Amino acid sequence: MVVSKFKIIALVAWLVVSFLGAGSLALAGPHPGLTMSAQEVVAMRSQLHTVPKAKQAFDDLQVKTDTSIELGVIVPKPVDAGGGYTHEQHKRNYQLMLDAGLLYQLSGKKRYANYVRDVLLAYAELYPTLPLHPKQKEQSPGKLFWQSLNEAVWLVHTIQAYDLVVGALTEAERNLIESSLLRPVANFLSEGQPDTFNKIHNHGTWAAAAVGMTGYVLDDQHLVDQALFGLDKSGKAGFIAQIEQLFSPDGYYTEGPYYQRYALMPFVLFARAIEVNEPQRAIFEASDGAILKAIETAVQLSYNGLFFGINDAIKDKGIDTIELVHGIAIAFEVTGDTQLLDIAKQQNHILLTGYGFSVAKALHEGRDTPFDFRSLQLRDGQDGQQGALSIFRHGQGSKHQALVVKNTSQGMGHGHFDKLHWLYFDNGNEIISDYGAARFLNIEAKYGGHYLPENNAWAKQTVAHNTVVVDEQSHFNGDWRVGQQHAPNIRFFAAQDGIQITSAEIAAAYPTTTLRRTMAMLELEGLTHPLILDVFKVNSVRAHQYDLPLHYQGQLISHTLKLQGAKQALSPLGEQHGYQYLWDRARAAFPAGLAQLTWLNDGRFYTYSTVGGTDQQMLFAMLGANDPQFNLRDQHALIHRVNSAHDHVFVSVLETHGEYNGRAEYTVGAQSNVVGLAVRELDKYTEVTINLVNGHQATLLYTEQGDENTQHQLDSAGGQVQWQGHFVVLKSQSKQSEQ
Amino acid sequence: MVVSKFKIIALVAWLVVSFLGAGSLALAGPHPGLTMSAQEVVAMRSQLHTVPKAKQAFDDLQVKTDTSIELGVIVPKPVDAGGGYTHEQHKRNYQLMLDAGLLYQLSGKKRYANYVRDVLLAYAELYPTLPLHPKQKEQSPGKLFWQSLNEAVWLVHTIQAYDLVVGALTEAERNLIESSLLRPVANFLSEGQPDTFNKIHNHGTWAAAAVGMTGYVLDDQHLVDQALFGLDKSGKAGFIAQIEQLFSPDGYYTEGPYYQRYALMPFVLFARAIEVNEPQRAIFEASDGAILKAIETAVQLSYNGLFFGINDAIKDKGIDTIELVHGIAIAFEVTGDTQLLDIAKQQNHILLTGYGFSVAKALHEGRDTPFDFRSLQLRDGQDGQQGALSIFRHGQGSKHQALVVKNTSQGMGHGHFDKLHWLYFDNGNEIISDYGAARFLNIEAKYGGHYLPENNAWAKQTVAHNTVVVDEQSHFNGDWRVGQQHAPNIRFFAAQDGIQITSAEIAAAYPTTTLRRTMAMLELEGLTHPLILDVFKVNSVRAHQYDLPLHYQGQLISHTLKLQGAKQALSPLGEQHGYQYLWDRARAAFPAGLAQLTWLNDGRFYTYSTVGGTDQQMLFAMLGANDPQFNLRDQHALIHRVNSAHDHVFVSVLETHGEYNGRAEYTVGAQSNVVGLAVRELDKYTEVTINLVNGHQATLLYTEQGDENTQHQLDSAGGQVQWQGHFVVLKSQSKQSEQ
Repeated sequence: MVVSKFKIIALVAWLVVSFLGAGSLALAGPHPGLTMSAQEVVAMRSQLHTVPKAKQAFDDLQVKTDTSIELGVIVPKPVDAGGGYTHEQHKRNYQLMLDAGLLYQLSGKKRYANYVRDVLLAYAELYPTLPLHPKQKEQSPGKLFWQSLNEAVWLVHTIQAYDLVVGALTEAERNLIESSLLRPVANFLSEGQPDTFNKIHNHGTWAAAAVGMTGYVLDDQHLVDQALFGLDKSGKAGFIAQIEQLFSPDGYYTEGPYYQRYALMPFVLFARAIEVNEPQRAIFEASDGAILKAIETAVQLSYNGLFFGINDAIKDKGIDTIELVHGIAIAFEVTGDTQLLDIAKQQNHILLTGYGFSVAKALHEGRDTPFDFRSLQLRDGQDGQQGALSIFRHGQGSKHQALVVKNTSQGMGHGHFDKLHWLYFDNGNEIISDYGAARFLNIEAKYGGHYLPENNAWAKQTVAHNTVVVDEQSHFNGDWRVGQQHAPNIRFFAAQDGIQITSAEIAAAYPTTTLRRTMAMLELEGLTHPLILDVFKVNSVRAHQYDLPLHYQGQLISHTLKLQGAKQALSPLGEQHGYQYLWDRARAAFPAGLAQLTWLNDGRFYTYSTVGGTDQQMLFAMLGANDPQFNLRDQHALIHRVNSAHDHVFVSVLETHGEYNGRAEYTVGAQSNVVGLAVRELDKYTEVTINLVNGHQATLLYTEQGDENTQHQLDSAGGQVQWQGHFVVLKSQSKQSEQ
Repeated sequence: MVVSKFKIIALVAWLVVSFLGAGSLALAGPHPGLTMSAQEVVAMRSQLHTVPKAKQAFDDLQVKTDTSIELGVIVPKPVDAGGGYTHEQHKRNYQLMLDAGLLYQLSGKKRYANYVRDVLLAYAELYPTLPLHPKQKEQSPGKLFWQSLNEAVWLVHTIQAYDLVVGALTEAERNLIESSLLRPVANFLSEGQPDTFNKIHNHGTWAAAAVGMTGYVLDDQHLVDQALFGLDKSGKAGFIAQIEQLFSPDGYYTEGPYYQRYALMPFVLFARAIEVNEPQRAIFEASDGAILKAIETAVQLSYNGLFFGINDAIKDKGIDTIELVHGIAIAFEVTGDTQLLDIAKQQNHILLTGYGFSVAKALHEGRDTPFDFRSLQLRDGQDGQQGALSIFRHGQGSKHQALVVKNTSQGMGHGHFDKLHWLYFDNGNEIISDYGAARFLNIEAKYGGHYLPENNAWAKQTVAHNTVVVDEQSHFNGDWRVGQQHAPNIRFFAAQDGIQITSAEIAAAYPTTTLRRTMAMLELEGLTHPLILDVFKVNSVRAHQYDLPLHYQGQLISHTLKLQGAKQALSPLGEQHGYQYLWDRARAAFPAGLAQLTWLNDGRFYTYSTVGGTDQQMLFAMLGANDPQFNLRDQHALIHRVNSAHDHVFVSVLETHGEYNGRAEYTVGAQSNVVGLAVRELDKYTEVTINLVNGHQATLLYTEQGDENTQHQLDSAGGQVQWQGHFVVLKSQSKQSEQ
């Protein structure tokens, strides 16, 4: 799926702004007409039975909703903080009203509308009596909830429910609900909290969506304009500015995919409402199609259904989260791109909205085509100048290889101190990993379900990532506000046949020290899977200790290092910056030449080949020290340590190979094919040589200097080499095997 | 599936002993007629295209076999031990000959028969020249392979291949192959190694099958009779005696399911050959239907497709292993039991034999019915008097609950020192676990793929299991030959509505110390899943330290113990009997009253509730000490330690509860419902009381004495209780919740 190819197709829905009469649901005005049109309702009522899965979803929703309705109207006085009873009950109410509203439209059964009416009337009675919430959060408190963010989410849902049932209400009911509830909440979220409403931030997006959607339903253009252009309607704030500023030109949200998913919800719902009510705004084309781009990018930021676990991420979130279910369906309605159906199929979640039904119908008709997970560079920052996330892929389907190189900016308060970090996925699994967030979401016993203290103390620290730590201190000394001011410079990026490569550097992570990393996915003859090549250069004016951790997933099988035997007692590796959580399980000296470690994960072998010197050691670390609450997961890491140096070049190759099948009792390809690895710096050029057991040799020559048009020339043992651009790969084969 | 209900149906095949003419494959004799009949071939040739999956398997086998055949005939001189090149090549040859033989019969293509002929002729040339194998194993060496066991497996396959192609051979070829290869190998396996051939042991079964099947194909009744009744044909040895003696009356093989699966293969193949050639023997009815029972029992010994990992077991083996693929298909051919098709469906492996095709056809016709995984007691020992394995199940499908109580005998050399051990499975996962074997099968880098030294030193030791360790020493002081002489006494077993329970004792695991354990799966009102109740009594004439380990799988969430803070250094828990592999991660004192620990596994919570005193502590142990080779997996265990006592009663309840859904962001039921637990000994009775947060109380009264008809009477606080048999459950409810 390429965003620039999106064809914006006309929606019939918005042409019917004064649609009258829908069978027994005849309405006086253009309702429903917010995220779902009356015409869509008519179509769904006649076609629902032709799409078995949608019919099933409808039947299921009726059963579930009937059960909830039987409990009666429950609108308690707000008392509890997030997670508490009244908090959860008000959340249940908005979802229930929305479900009942949909059922009313689809079934014509008056009792659903009556239930929504009764709940709304109860709120209309309660709301005017409410002061600020008793457990209010310091910033932006709400009334129904402890923070106004929840109040905005409540209104986004409730106004959709109101739109669905308003045709069944008397004028007196409508007046009461609108004047005592909907307008007051909308005013509270806009004029009542100007700072939040005008903020270019996720909270501001929710507030804008809530206020603007209310404006459409109440036919109040003033509210709509404030939502779109800020309180003063100048355009400096509001939804349009948010679309422009919150995502990078490549649709990347700076906090990473976990929060990108969350941030998307108000964008897609409000945009859908704008499309239905003011199609002339062509909202999905705004800012170079930013919303559609962000939806596609969220999907690209995943592997085997789960988001890359960078920054503060709960790692079981993926493309089937509710935000992307709405996002994909709304994007499909706009673009008709059948690749989106592939994602919808994996989501396996049918929405009973107009756009949800379009997807269900298209899937029933088998119109889905494979989603193109591809290699790409996602620039970070509003202007695309704050570093980038590079994704390199090889193969197709849930078991393909993916290398993720995180050369992004800090990512604000949810960012981790992991400049030039990387992850690797293969065979459906995370092989070189990111810990993600230290948090058990919604598990009260684990620090109330909040981010654990170990999130700051371990998960965010540099040593928890696959990048260099200088003198056992995190990047930017662990201060995200400092980190926020510096992003890596991307030197080059290329995704070509046979080689995919990127290079970046940052000089600000440590004082007077420059980090430069070049990573490549390299295909070589005789190998089933591409190699992952890593060259990490550290240069400093002073001598330091350099640690390069590798957080691998799997069972260690063998290695060629000189291990110093089993320890009779374990102690932590350090005292701060995350090192206090690692047990110093074993240490090893490097052999002369190649050092190799092989592990097994889910029936496949992975061999990490590197070279080290006598001034270096390999540490075998294990997570879990200083963790009396058992808050951390079991994890193992290798740490390649250079004891003291001004400059150092780490070089390594990761090979994916072989198969272990315990069921059928066979093992093939358990040995790595890599038999040689060397790196040399030749003036401004870097030369990496890899030798395979089959006699093939590959040499990568690259330079961080110049650009893609620069001409280069170098004399080497094999003669003179000339090339254009940052890199070239030379291949040769010896007549005999090198083993 | 109940074995006693098996209806032995007539097979048409065996009636056609002198079948003549099969289209272009017209044969002079009754070939094929070993495990597959000529009539089956005719049927398959006409019907294969009607069963798409079988047709696909046929096409795939042709492609695969053609590729192998292109490499030519490769029959190397035997040189290598197991795993080495010549070993693997001779294994590949027998499989390839069998595949080519099947393809010849099904396709009629002469080149397949020619290939088998050429390989057989190469062997006929090589075999007479061979001395014993250069890498011969001490016991029972082979010629083609290092041990005669492999030679028997080779002949079982090769004789089937010969039967499939013999009709295409000239008389000269037949004479050469039979006289220089098949008879010599059969003679070597029978007269050539009388001890192995006459042994009531797995190796003997393979030898008998190889010799007997060769007898049928060569029309040599002498060989057949030796195979069935031993070298002297007395019936003291041979296949018939093996059927009687190797499995218990409940079809349990004493080494456990992992080896049961392996032992089955020669039984099912030779039995099938007997059924085709001598149906009058009614071999599948022999010994009360022992073979069919053993096949069914192997399936019952699994959870979610994998075998219970008791004793020396590689834990990724399950019901889809090739031995059970043959076993299930052959059993279906005999019984027509459509429950077997459910297992075949999960195996998803189509055999292109007659019985394999029957299964494929029946599955294509949708005739499968759910396999009845049920609660049962599998007695151990030839006479059923060597203890038992109890399996208690609740619910259906891959996520049901299963409690396995291992009150079996030692299980010979592959047995573990785990008297009265248990395992628990839920939600598709192993929750209370057995380490299984310490072995990376076929992974050369891990001790040549053999059992690791840690198999004896850790995996077999008592502390690696969920049963009491006295004074940090394993049962029988770790001597399996001593263990082999003693089995637990089963006191009672019952699987009733609401409660499933068993009780056993053993006095010989330690000198002057008796271990008694009663375990139950108990359903209570208000609980979604049954509780697992455990009462473990230890009585000794002297004071000892008692450790009760619990090997749980999951992430610890919370506990109510008084932990002694985080350790700054870890040391091993002990020096021998497995303790040297456990890190002493943390220790905790018990609170007054209930002690609870909750962990999370795959979105579900598990709470272990127990009670302890001031003379006791809970140890939090972690596997991995003294493991410089990284041979052990990450595992955590709790160890409930009684420092010094003559007698002690451990009591605990394990509750399965709630749900954590990180994707949809909700958590329900994270708190245990158990709020009270107490055990009292009242003369010969034991009383266990469990209180739930909903006010329900359940009291289990039981006695190890008497039998199921004994009348009991007891005065208690609630009045006099009378019951018959070993146990009774009393339930009551307080008017108010107890919390």
